[in-house]
Amino acid sequence: MWQSSSEEDLEKDCPLTDSKQTARSTEMPPVGKDGKIIAAKRGLLERLCAGEVIIGDGGFVVALEKRGYVKAGPWTPEATVEHPEAVRELHREFLRAGSTVMQTFTFYASDDKLENRGNYVEKKFSGQKVNEAACDIAREVANEGDALVAGGVSQTPSYLSCKSETDVKAIFRKQLDVFIKKNVDFMLAEYFEHVEEAEWAVQVLKESGKPVGATMCIGPEGDLTGVSAGDCAVKLVKAGADLVGVNCHFDPTTCLKTMKLMKEGLEAANLKAHLIVQPLAFHTPDCNKQGFIDLPEFPFALEPRILTRWEVHKYARDAYNMGIRYIGGCCGFEPYHIRAITEELAAERGFLSKASEKHDAWGGGLAMHTKPWVRARAQRAYWENLVPASGRPYSASLSKPDSWGVTRGDKDLIQQKEMTTENQLKEMFDKQKNVAGMIV
Amino acid sequence: MWQSSSEEDLEKDCPLTDSKQTARSTEMPPVGKDGKIIAAKRGLLERLCAGEVIIGDGGFVVALEKRGYVKAGPWTPEATVEHPEAVRELHREFLRAGSTVMQTFTFYASDDKLENRGNYVEKKFSGQKVNEAACDIAREVANEGDALVAGGVSQTPSYLSCKSETDVKAIFRKQLDVFIKKNVDFMLAEYFEHVEEAEWAVQVLKESGKPVGATMCIGPEGDLTGVSAGDCAVKLVKAGADLVGVNCHFDPTTCLKTMKLMKEGLEAANLKAHLIVQPLAFHTPDCNKQGFIDLPEFPFALEPRILTRWEVHKYARDAYNMGIRYIGGCCGFEPYHIRAITEELAAERGFLSKASEKHDAWGGGLAMHTKPWVRARAQRAYWENLVPASGRPYSASLSKPDSWGVTRGDKDLIQQKEMTTENQLKEMFDKQKNVAGMIV
Amino acid sequence: MWQSSSEEDLEKDCPLTDSKQTARSTEMPPVGKDGKIIAAKRGLLERLCAGEVIIGDGGFVVALEKRGYVKAGPWTPEATVEHPEAVRELHREFLRAGSTVMQTFTFYASDDKLENRGNYVEKKFSGQKVNEAACDIAREVANEGDALVAGGVSQTPSYLSCKSETDVKAIFRKQLDVFIKKNVDFMLAEYFEHVEEAEWAVQVLKESGKPVGATMCIGPEGDLTGVSAGDCAVKLVKAGADLVGVNCHFDPTTCLKTMKLMKEGLEAANLKAHLIVQPLAFHTPDCNKQGFIDLPEFPFALEPRILTRWEVHKYARDAYNMGIRYIGGCCGFEPYHIRAITEELAAERGFLSKASEKHDAWGGGLAMHTKPWVRARAQRAYWENLVPASGRPYSASLSKPDSWGVTRGDKDLIQQKEMTTENQLKEMFDKQKNVAGMIV
Amino acid sequence: MWQSSSEEDLEKDCPLTDSKQTARSTEMPPVGKDGKIIAAKRGLLERLCAGEVIIGDGGFVVALEKRGYVKAGPWTPEATVEHPEAVRELHREFLRAGSTVMQTFTFYASDDKLENRGNYVEKKFSGQKVNEAACDIAREVANEGDALVAGGVSQTPSYLSCKSETDVKAIFRKQLDVFIKKNVDFMLAEYFEHVEEAEWAVQVLKESGKPVGATMCIGPEGDLTGVSAGDCAVKLVKAGADLVGVNCHFDPTTCLKTMKLMKEGLEAANLKAHLIVQPLAFHTPDCNKQGFIDLPEFPFALEPRILTRWEVHKYARDAYNMGIRYIGGCCGFEPYHIRAITEELAAERGFLSKASEKHDAWGGGLAMHTKPWVRARAQRAYWENLVPASGRPYSASLSKPDSWGVTRGDKDLIQQKEMTTENQLKEMFDKQKNVAGMIV
Repeated sequence: MWQSSSEEDLEKDCPLTDSKQTARSTEMPPVGKDGKIIAAKRGLLERLCAGEVIIGDGGFVVALEKRGYVKAGPWTPEATVEHPEAVRELHREFLRAGSTVMQTFTFYASDDKLENRGNYVEKKFSGQKVNEAACDIAREVANEGDALVAGGVSQTPSYLSCKSETDVKAIFRKQLDVFIKKNVDFMLAEYFEHVEEAEWAVQVLKESGKPVGATMCIGPEGDLTGVSAGDCAVKLVKAGADLVGVNCHFDPTTCLKTMKLMKEGLEAANLKAHLIVQPLAFHTPDCNKQGFIDLPEFPFALEPRILTRWEVHKYARDAYNMGIRYIGGCCGFEPYHIRAITEELAAERGFLSKASEKHDAWGGGLAMHTKPWVRARAQRAYWENLVPASGRPYSASLSKPDSWGVTRGDKDLIQQKEMTTENQLKEMFDKQKNVAGMIV
Repeated sequence: MWQSSSEEDLEKDCPLTDSKQTARSTEMPPVGKDGKIIAAKRGLLERLCAGEVIIGDGGFVVALEKRGYVKAGPWTPEATVEHPEAVRELHREFLRAGSTVMQTFTFYASDDKLENRGNYVEKKFSGQKVNEAACDIAREVANEGDALVAGGVSQTPSYLSCKSETDVKAIFRKQLDVFIKKNVDFMLAEYFEHVEEAEWAVQVLKESGKPVGATMCIGPEGDLTGVSAGDCAVKLVKAGADLVGVNCHFDPTTCLKTMKLMKEGLEAANLKAHLIVQPLAFHTPDCNKQGFIDLPEFPFALEPRILTRWEVHKYARDAYNMGIRYIGGCCGFEPYHIRAITEELAAERGFLSKASEKHDAWGGGLAMHTKPWVRARAQRAYWENLVPASGRPYSASLSKPDSWGVTRGDKDLIQQKEMTTENQLKEMFDKQKNVAGMIV
Repeated sequence: MWQSSSEEDLEKDCPLTDSKQTARSTEMPPVGKDGKIIAAKRGLLERLCAGEVIIGDGGFVVALEKRGYVKAGPWTPEATVEHPEAVRELHREFLRAGSTVMQTFTFYASDDKLENRGNYVEKKFSGQKVNEAACDIAREVANEGDALVAGGVSQTPSYLSCKSETDVKAIFRKQLDVFIKKNVDFMLAEYFEHVEEAEWAVQVLKESGKPVGATMCIGPEGDLTGVSAGDCAVKLVKAGADLVGVNCHFDPTTCLKTMKLMKEGLEAANLKAHLIVQPLAFHTPDCNKQGFIDLPEFPFALEPRILTRWEVHKYARDAYNMGIRYIGGCCGFEPYHIRAITEELAAERGFLSKASEKHDAWGGGLAMHTKPWVRARAQRAYWENLVPASGRPYSASLSKPDSWGVTRGDKDLIQQKEMTTENQLKEMFDKQKNVAGMIV
Repeated sequence: MWQSSSEEDLEKDCPLTDSKQTARSTEMPPVGKDGKIIAAKRGLLERLCAGEVIIGDGGFVVALEKRGYVKAGPWTPEATVEHPEAVRELHREFLRAGSTVMQTFTFYASDDKLENRGNYVEKKFSGQKVNEAACDIAREVANEGDALVAGGVSQTPSYLSCKSETDVKAIFRKQLDVFIKKNVDFMLAEYFEHVEEAEWAVQVLKESGKPVGATMCIGPEGDLTGVSAGDCAVKLVKAGADLVGVNCHFDPTTCLKTMKLMKEGLEAANLKAHLIVQPLAFHTPDCNKQGFIDLPEFPFALEPRILTRWEVHKYARDAYNMGIRYIGGCCGFEPYHIRAITEELAAERGFLSKASEKHDAWGGGLAMHTKPWVRARAQRAYWENLVPASGRPYSASLSKPDSWGVTRGDKDLIQQKEMTTENQLKEMFDKQKNVAGMIV
């Protein structure tokens, strides 16, 4: 098994490496600011097969929403066109924190999503422009370090609206065309609630000849159609994924439970794949299978659930110990969370990130604090054992999730170009009134 | 009273306005990117006397620590030299969120702090360079909108080390020289635990001839030497401050309690001043008079205490109702928190900020969300009444603060150029062991 | 001061002792089961003036409600007639736990309360019968140990209905007649929200010539008409009370805050009195001035607020240190809570209670537990430091109290012989819907 | 299946009823206070086979510990001899609350337990005397109503000390001899952590010819030797139990999860048995398989975990819906909790208990409360939806259980007649220091 600790085994058993692939590209090799061609970086599979840890980045939509560049609700990435400098700055922070992958900020950048429920982006800019800008920014920052660029696609309203396989695949292919043109280093199909749609995405992305990763936003209960986590992993590898796992929707603890099931599923099926995990930076012990979307706090009151950096340390260690070698984050992960992964795995990897210039291990920088009792906190034992208080005496530990039981094909999930009407909203509000979690 | 709702009264009774002042400056008027002189903006006091609301910005050290550019412990602003683009981006986000003041990122930028406990900044760059860069960046971004630049000074290790008034004032004057040279719009003495030091700072800043604000980081119990909040306000106004209040160390609720006491103190003394409040974006109901520094979670496990945007709405309204017209934030305030102030006061001010392009009031953007039960949250009643869960079943609501009782002059507070030694740290660690809040 | 530690001072300065009083009684001295006259016990004031600690008992209505003999709502003590053996057993448990006072179970046993809102007790048994039975039971058990009998009266619906002083005093006098006939050892006016009514009660009880104690159910904010806690104490002593303090409505921490204010009030007025405190055994940090009645959990969901025995230890120590020498409990105090007072003060008093035969100090009995990790808890440090978890992840720390602002004279507070009607209830329910604290 | 709703099926398929059994007894039939023979009551199986609900009683050791008659640590029932009136009163309260079974207070009344770790009971009174007194009291109170008497045995230190099957069975047989002599109505083997010991107990109790119930104190993870809950149920039925289930150690929610597994295990094995559940009245979502013994709060700080009466309503309904017909409680269940079971199932059973004279359904008695906002709580919707606050801002929701991993045969579990020595205690204390859950 490639998760084995024996280096020889690793190489021998490793799934296809990049070098053996014939990648299609319509662009020139990357060029630095000085105009020179940049020496080719080692590819994703090469690194993974060598047993290296790939560190992902954090969640762009949530981070940029807080910075004022993304709208909660549509969650679309038009900031790549509207505010490229803000997207670039966030990429740089993640690079500086140790990310070795720059994911193109193309979440929900499929054409159908960009014109859903009144969204102006498709009409004003076009999906192609948004995706191209995302690739350019990601590549620019990746070239400032040793990072790879991953072209990402995610689930579509078309699938929820029961469009055909052909139609849905065409949607993905439009994004893929940009990724090929911009010569990203590998592909990532992420944030899928239905394994069928994820398989379609993988099949399309494989056309590129580049490595393909696939992550579902599912928990231990499996996908929304009842396919188990183990079976999802098997289906994705069979569809062509080199790298499988989960992202978003659940906290690290829950995601690692799901990863365990996926790993066991692959082993039972005698399949090999690299493992990837990119959880939320929010505690979600109270979720049902729909994930944090169902929690009453989503998306505007999740603050008390945010992970501390020390909780990320634990996550990184647990993920590593489980054999996962692509470890990153999703919504809620800020640069300092990614830095915590880098710092936890510094011994194994042999180096720190640049951002650790401003962060000594385990709070060591506090030795420079003016107040002596804060200097007394400059130690691992302090932070590792502290259970932080919420400062919120009227708030509970857990919430009851909304559980509307609405699934694919339901009228309320169908794509709709017009803005949600007042009447439609009122209908929703009436339903909300009967749901637990509100104090009136 | 200037807090009165009668406009005539406002003008008649208003403290000195900027126009009557003879400000010293050694620089040319601001010039735009196109080389043209930018039309003079209306000054701070002019705006306040007209009854306008000034919206402050958020906390740079905490925000930039999470982005990887500031070190927790020293908390010094060398990023102005090391990573100006990151500082600029944060200024831009606050401007976009509605801040009408760009505070120079000169917190703890006094020469003595920049060489305290092994800090390399004074030696490598010099305080002057750090302060100048901060002014340049703040001005650049301020000119992109209708914002003013505030030159800020804060408390010094010299004072804690019992240096003389002359010595401490000299420290402040070095920063002031930069502010005058760079022609900032007004001065802000902030984050003072001892009213005496704050008075010294105000006296120095008044030499500029510009408006001066002063905020202490105290709670309702008053300053660390036992001077009541009301007396602190009186002393600061008598020292020359046009604008007084509190910043940092406590949550909005606690800060507004302190503001009430300050306001009452001023009224009792028959003094007039504008009021300013810039609290933490962390819940701190459990603090003692030392503020959040004493909480076991400071500074690396404060996440569960972070304010939601809706809690900021309430704060903005309460501050406004109390007659405060300079409303901002300190540590923990991110751009989306500032935007919440702007949105809450939109009716009074007559306009929104640019960042509201990406944020419809009270979660309205969720009307565009794919899932119907999330669209059901696109309403004020939902967010205003929700008490968010922490997702942390092992964490309590409140913590017992450290209460070491160490005050000015104590050996552990004295400035020390060398890095804290191992022995010094060990001594602190031993003391920490006996403090509540740790689960061992 | 009588709280002084000097014994001579105590005697010299002590308020009038029992021996100097001419008590009226129409009954024979107490006779034991064997028919012999029982040697006269030392009186209340004699004990208090000697610096002894009097240990009160716990809350009968709440304890007997859980045992099935008292109805929550009316809270009247007809169990003295209906189930005397159950009342007797509870008295015995408190005696065994160390109580040196048996309060007659005559709470709310005034005639007007026994016929309020459909209550059948006045009609079926008469108040006289209920009060007499209570005295008999209390005396029987008191004689089994060294305990005194206290005849208790409490606030009346007549006062809330704005009846005259004459009418209200007549109500108290009916109970007093029974206490005199039954020759109780002293009188206790307890559970008063209005100091005026408490003064009336004290004035009536003083007619007996016996010592009189008076406790109000107020918090640090004072009585419901705005009289401060200090002034309440002064008024009660001036009305004739030998012993003043608070009972019920608030937790020990809050009650001791109130006691501090009462003590300071008495000292400022140069008055002397013994101090008594009998708090709830429920945590109520979130109460407003109406006390736990206002909390949403009252009376059927207070369980998570119940004090542990270790929390009672702390209370007993704090009360003792404040100079209070009559230390007991009210609603929620079960026999094991009273035993905790006895055990905490065992060193000062020189003896334990009988119930400590079944309870070694600080959990020492666990040394006999089968499981070794439970034996490891047989130590003070363990229990003193443990902060117990609630086991309730959906519950918060604090509640928002109801705050209807209904006061004396309001139509909803007027005595009414008929059962509350359906329409009246519906009106209440409608109002409830708008109150915080409900999850719907 | 007997859980079926069809009455005919019930009778046809019901396990052996009492009438077909030849019970051994050495005593005369029960005689009332008036000297007359009391008409034979319908037996346990007769009632269960008729589809009736049997309501158990609550936990004697915990209730009587709080009343001052039982020592925490040994937890032995010598109160039957030392304070029979207190035991009798508690039985009466449960009878009054609706219990249709009086369990003899013979928990841990095996001879080996009564002389374990310094216990004086065996030597002073003898196990026989304690057991006989327990039977007499239970019978006396059972005859005051329509209740049956259950003779109970529980796990032994002998088994933990690895004594032989013959030795352990001899221990149980000594208690059985008393039960036969006193002619109890049926037998209950309860509180077993190891299914093997439970089987031995059932085999011994079956010698009586009376119905035998068996409950283990296990959770969904099964017994301490790893036997699954389903297999435990199967083994117990095969050993002869007519009635199987769980008691103690876990809260209702967890116990019902275990019951579900037991029921499924029986169905899979094609076995029939009546189901019984008697959970804790403490919330224990955070337990591991050792149950609440492992929680840091056991046994002296469990207060915040106590169930409200409304939480018992839910439990009773859920248990009933699962087909369980013997529904009772264990540690923490007070009379008012049992009354809640009776009230929840009043419609199904057709009658209430006597204690409901003092408790109108769903808080209805509050209609008689003086304060109008409390009258507003006299409704089901209020109490059913309320999530009670803990009033404890420094306490968390969950605790980390001790997990010492000590099992049968470990030296620390071996029976020891001498009191635990100081050195033994010190050894335990040292181990405790490293366990989570303490705030130091």
